Amino acid sequence: MDEDATAPAPDDRYARGLEILRVVGGQHDPAVVDALADLAPDLARYTVEFAYGDVYARPGLTWRERQLVTVAALTALGTAPTQLHFHIRGALEVGTTPREITETIAHISVYAGFPAALNGLSAARAVFSEEGAAVEVAADRGPDGDESRYERGLRLLSEIDGDAGHRVVESLRDVAPDLGRYLVEFAFGDIYAGTGLDLRMRELVTVAACTALGTATPQLRLHVGGCLNVGGTREDVVEVITQMAVYAGFPAALNALAAAREAFASH
Amino acid sequence: MDEDATAPAPDDRYARGLEILRVVGGQHDPAVVDALADLAPDLARYTVEFAYGDVYARPGLTWRERQLVTVAALTALGTAPTQLHFHIRGALEVGTTPREITETIAHISVYAGFPAALNGLSAARAVFSEEGAAVEVAADRGPDGDESRYERGLRLLSEIDGDAGHRVVESLRDVAPDLGRYLVEFAFGDIYAGTGLDLRMRELVTVAACTALGTATPQLRLHVGGCLNVGGTREDVVEVITQMAVYAGFPAALNALAAAREAFASH
Amino acid sequence: MDEDATAPAPDDRYARGLEILRVVGGQHDPAVVDALADLAPDLARYTVEFAYGDVYARPGLTWRERQLVTVAALTALGTAPTQLHFHIRGALEVGTTPREITETIAHISVYAGFPAALNGLSAARAVFSEEGAAVEVAADRGPDGDESRYERGLRLLSEIDGDAGHRVVESLRDVAPDLGRYLVEFAFGDIYAGTGLDLRMRELVTVAACTALGTATPQLRLHVGGCLNVGGTREDVVEVITQMAVYAGFPAALNALAAAREAFASH
Repeated sequence: MDEDATAPAPDDRYARGLEILRVVGGQHDPAVVDALADLAPDLARYTVEFAYGDVYARPGLTWRERQLVTVAALTALGTAPTQLHFHIRGALEVGTTPREITETIAHISVYAGFPAALNGLSAARAVFSEEGAAVEVAADRGPDGDESRYERGLRLLSEIDGDAGHRVVESLRDVAPDLGRYLVEFAFGDIYAGTGLDLRMRELVTVAACTALGTATPQLRLHVGGCLNVGGTREDVVEVITQMAVYAGFPAALNALAAAREAFASH
Repeated sequence: MDEDATAPAPDDRYARGLEILRVVGGQHDPAVVDALADLAPDLARYTVEFAYGDVYARPGLTWRERQLVTVAALTALGTAPTQLHFHIRGALEVGTTPREITETIAHISVYAGFPAALNGLSAARAVFSEEGAAVEVAADRGPDGDESRYERGLRLLSEIDGDAGHRVVESLRDVAPDLGRYLVEFAFGDIYAGTGLDLRMRELVTVAACTALGTATPQLRLHVGGCLNVGGTREDVVEVITQMAVYAGFPAALNALAAAREAFASH
Repeated sequence: MDEDATAPAPDDRYARGLEILRVVGGQHDPAVVDALADLAPDLARYTVEFAYGDVYARPGLTWRERQLVTVAALTALGTAPTQLHFHIRGALEVGTTPREITETIAHISVYAGFPAALNGLSAARAVFSEEGAAVEVAADRGPDGDESRYERGLRLLSEIDGDAGHRVVESLRDVAPDLGRYLVEFAFGDIYAGTGLDLRMRELVTVAACTALGTATPQLRLHVGGCLNVGGTREDVVEVITQMAVYAGFPAALNALAAAREAFASH
């Protein structure tokens, strides 16, 4: 991170940003620059310089990862269909598979509800149809042997959140035991057990969605720890949160970073 | 709740969910299952099994109540117009009156602002027009005798929130006395005094909206207590919050439940 | 504020509200009253009486300021495109310049991210095109002499937030120094340095956006103080927050007021 700490000359930032934007945007979009030229040329320039030239150009995550966390955040927010469309296509442009995209969006059902995930999938359908991209749908998971959904969920919850996840389920026992059961069975036994994304990537998109929502601080803290438990690094977490400054604003990123710092300290 | 604590066999969950989905969706929609078959068949199955087979099938609330709290939450969120449309129609399908729907949506003006409520009413207009449903508009309330809006609001605030509501108004006196006055006059004197929904139902949709928003924790705590004051039960509150896991995600439901537990303890 | 504390007679509230609504709405819109007459006539009446007759009619802010803070809030929320369109046009109707509108929307990129700002600008483009309004685009800022973006950002951060802003940047140094650098360079060195809005107005729209979002409490507290540092008054802040009860609901306004009270106390 140190070599990044020296700000490059403005011209470099713009050129570097434009180059990235052209890859992510594919041949379909004129640069946002043109679209804003007559109305808000400064913001157009900042989009190129800051969003792409500064943040996207950072070395900490692959472009595939950057696109998936952006798709996760925009799916969770549900307020930017144009940008979600753009970034689903951008995900394809940088080599993400359609299946990774649909798994990421489906994963968000846990964090922002089914309507958010279903609307994200509608956007994906539209993009895939335009691009002729086909989803290789998961083969049926088949019989899970003797493991029930609850057992599978508990196993994954332990792997990801350690004791912390169990404490959440335990704490629900007096007032809402079924909500605890659904958390284990659906969130972990169904969604996290899906084969299309590995656990580290699931935790990165979880951190992105919780950062963007801004209303899931206890869960964000838990899953920052979870990310470290399944192979993610502190740098991964900081990169995802930093990128969210672009897509959800600085308060979202700053408040998430405060939560992440607490999780780092107690890990 | 105890008999529900034993997870039914997977097949039962799917069959039960599909049956409910067909009632709520009426004859208009092919099951969401078909729509997602090629893209995300797992999420389609979870929608049926978890959202309908697990949560919607729970005995704690009537289907009419389940539809109204969902309409309230989606109106407050403002991010899922397709699903709001579906669930307004679903409310009609399970026997809710158009008037109950419009009162629920108008109620949300207090909790998420006028734009959210006005957009919810636009969705209701579209559904009612498709379905040929007519709203029996409230007869003019007529003269309220000697009771001013402020007096009526204070009376309802006392009935619902006891001393807690008064303390909120009192606490505004030094910095923003007019905001306190508007809270009494508009929120309670106008909206809560409306005749189309009883107070228990107003508190259930309030709990749903505050849970889904995730930014109204002090108000959620207050209105969980309010719900108990006007005839609602702890089970009602827990059911509404549990259902929000489907529509706004698990963090929203878990954080709301933490607030509800505090309200239960101090009630 | 004292003379406002006596509620006017209901008839006055309606007539006064309707008069304002007709100015803000221009000749384009039939009153929202007509649109809701058959569906929710009470809410239509409350829109006129409460939103316009009570809140908008308050003397604390100019109509130009009221429109800009509403545009800021609706841009940040991203959930009410119809109302954003209406209020951008309303801003023109009451004499706001197109440039003030685009600067307000671009400013929101800091607080709610680029997608929110870009969608707000699309709405502005549509309105300007309908109204034949032309934006006088800022002349290129030209060379800033020896001052780098970082230096300019630090200077503005000091002017607005005093020590508090520096403490935020300082606190990021261990975990995410680049996020702190972007905050200084982009948020303050680029956006706040823009010439189209003065600093007081930038802080008013910041307070509006953070109030409406409901997820930016630490930032709201900081910028309430910031507003007072650059020429705003406590009454300005309370007026903006009170107006947000209309556009984002009472919980948003009440929680923001609690944060503002803390900022007032420590200022």
